[in-house]
Amino acid sequence: TARLRADSMAAALAAMSLDEAPEEKEVVVDPWTVSGKIDYDKLIRDFGSQPISEALIARFERVTGAVAHPWLKRGIFFSHRDLDIVLDNYEKGKPMYLYTGRGPSSEALHLGHLIPFMFTKYLQDVFKCVLVVQMTDDEKFLWKDLKLEECHRLAFENAKDIIACGFDITKTLIFSDLDYIGHMYPNILKIQKATTYNQVKGIFGFDDSVNIGKHAFPAVQAAPSFSSSFPHIFGGDTTVPCLIPCAIDQDPYFRMTRDVAPRLGFGKPALIHSKFFPALQGADSKMSASDEASAIFCTDTPKQIKDKVNKYAFSGGRETVEEHRKLGGDCAVDISYQWLTFFLHDDAKLQHIHDEYSSGRMLSGEIKKELIDVITPMVQLHQAARSHVTDDIVRTFMTPRKLNLER
Amino acid sequence: TARLRADSMAAALAAMSLDEAPEEKEVVVDPWTVSGKIDYDKLIRDFGSQPISEALIARFERVTGAVAHPWLKRGIFFSHRDLDIVLDNYEKGKPMYLYTGRGPSSEALHLGHLIPFMFTKYLQDVFKCVLVVQMTDDEKFLWKDLKLEECHRLAFENAKDIIACGFDITKTLIFSDLDYIGHMYPNILKIQKATTYNQVKGIFGFDDSVNIGKHAFPAVQAAPSFSSSFPHIFGGDTTVPCLIPCAIDQDPYFRMTRDVAPRLGFGKPALIHSKFFPALQGADSKMSASDEASAIFCTDTPKQIKDKVNKYAFSGGRETVEEHRKLGGDCAVDISYQWLTFFLHDDAKLQHIHDEYSSGRMLSGEIKKELIDVITPMVQLHQAARSHVTDDIVRTFMTPRKLNLER
Repeated sequence: TARLRADSMAAALAAMSLDEAPEEKEVVVDPWTVSGKIDYDKLIRDFGSQPISEALIARFERVTGAVAHPWLKRGIFFSHRDLDIVLDNYEKGKPMYLYTGRGPSSEALHLGHLIPFMFTKYLQDVFKCVLVVQMTDDEKFLWKDLKLEECHRLAFENAKDIIACGFDITKTLIFSDLDYIGHMYPNILKIQKATTYNQVKGIFGFDDSVNIGKHAFPAVQAAPSFSSSFPHIFGGDTTVPCLIPCAIDQDPYFRMTRDVAPRLGFGKPALIHSKFFPALQGADSKMSASDEASAIFCTDTPKQIKDKVNKYAFSGGRETVEEHRKLGGDCAVDISYQWLTFFLHDDAKLQHIHDEYSSGRMLSGEIKKELIDVITPMVQLHQAARSHVTDDIVRTFMTPRKLNLER
Repeated sequence: TARLRADSMAAALAAMSLDEAPEEKEVVVDPWTVSGKIDYDKLIRDFGSQPISEALIARFERVTGAVAHPWLKRGIFFSHRDLDIVLDNYEKGKPMYLYTGRGPSSEALHLGHLIPFMFTKYLQDVFKCVLVVQMTDDEKFLWKDLKLEECHRLAFENAKDIIACGFDITKTLIFSDLDYIGHMYPNILKIQKATTYNQVKGIFGFDDSVNIGKHAFPAVQAAPSFSSSFPHIFGGDTTVPCLIPCAIDQDPYFRMTRDVAPRLGFGKPALIHSKFFPALQGADSKMSASDEASAIFCTDTPKQIKDKVNKYAFSGGRETVEEHRKLGGDCAVDISYQWLTFFLHDDAKLQHIHDEYSSGRMLSGEIKKELIDVITPMVQLHQAARSHVTDDIVRTFMTPRKLNLER
């Protein structure tokens, strides 16, 4: 098969973010904090989700007739809940929809922000289904030192970057919570009534000193998981199942949602979880929208991209060229290599780079150049696409309206 | 003056709900529980509000040119926050608005429910100002064993009883939270962000087992206190001050609101608080919309009114007629007398009944007849007024729209 997991490249991938040394700091993975050395197998066990097996990927290809996305084959989308049921339903011709989101806290998105949207765009093409994108401007206001009006403005700005990923305007609704809350409020109330503070405290680790908006918010993030939150799209059908692509840190919201769903007479949303996209400075450092040096932004120029990768991308290379030639580079910690696993979709070429770098034939400067050559045109294409997204187009995407439900 | 507080009738009123025996059960006054023997002077001290003095009432009459409502003169509206500032502003010709509300949990309103609306109607006439009425269908859903759709329907039904109190359609907005939440959400978020769970726990006595909607709700009740929640009425003016007439048990919401207001750059709402309207069975029993016998409903027939008063109204009369003639009735506990202090606005007649009953010249059956004669036409007038409130009229009152801001 085309899957690469079993080979040496996949071993490097599997080792991503794993330290050989004993754990030094606590591992925290929740919607606001990702810290410590992440063991993704342990995360699956702790969260109670399912690994995405080769068999499931094979079935995905068989049922949809689509080639599996490299991020599936490479284990970047590595965990799921009920993806098998999604495939059962698709096979039977039943309707479904996708739901993802973005917390608009920065002017420009970085490459990590694009991962779920790029994958969601792929899924929309595969399943030929409706997508709803929640812009949680309310969440960002409650958690960050930002003015509400600024969060609302950023939701509109960020929608441009999302639209630039290529979503089908006839099948996609993007909504700001601030604008859309009235439509969701009945479901929000039903979710809130079915959820105690003890439960959210257990799931999210809140303490009593946090603001009361944070207590209420998980229900806002949960609500789009239910088709009754979109009456203008689904005409009051409360049973259309939902599939949520997201990074694994968002899972706590949907564990809560799945817990509450049966008590409301709704179906549980299915999920497909990605690993974290590492920061330039290394898998352990936090990629932050407020730290220019930690990420490549969608607005960066070719020169900025080149300079940042050369200056900041954590290297798995050795101290000296001699040592590097002898021992080879360490793909498991080398950020250029890891980013290539995300953005270089040519399996053969990725394998070649892996072998060349691990053997020491390829130097750090050279693997950085490979990365620069992959992401520079990608960012430029994104910028070109975004430049065509007018305010009118954004307003259309953001208007609650009928969507095309045809497969 | 026409004020009656200093005389014997007022002494009976002041003793309302006070027991001579030592307190036997804990006194609880919050938005969901009113229990124990209420000492209104102590409540003013505990809540930190101000008593409504004779001097303030005199100034109210001077500034507004209106005769003080009997409920002001009789100390039924007995407590306030910043009513003096409201009068200052009115004197200077500044705009203001009134805000009150109703939690729609029953089909029919009882007489106790009408108190705040009757008084608010009086205040609208006096101040010639806009009124907003919040129907907290969301609150009732979160607190009661009711379906959301039922709470929403009851909000519409209850609006008819409210409208029947005579509010000016050109100056009044009635809104269901479920329908209106989108307009208030920015202010709700600002209030939530400025309020910790520790604070609401202290104010409302929540524990961690309550649903998260209850944690969030106080901000929903607070939001209409700020004119920016009504942009279509006040055209974006965020500084129009608000006066809230309510029963004293609702004060915790507005203590929280007043605490948070300066941090949001908003003015603090002013309040005017009423005492509780006692249940038929006596001041200590709970008047409940679900206990037919505890209240007179707006839908009751003359026969039902007569039967209920005769059967259930707790009597301050003596065991035997002989004893009653000798010792006299006790106005401080007699529900017929106490209800007359609410609904018989003729001071001389009320004084006469007080004197006749306390002296023993008037018997329990006779004072009950006095009450029946007062409330039967009142309820019939209300029913006649309500019968003219069409669904279209309700929809007009409940449509967010421009209102007449002229004095």
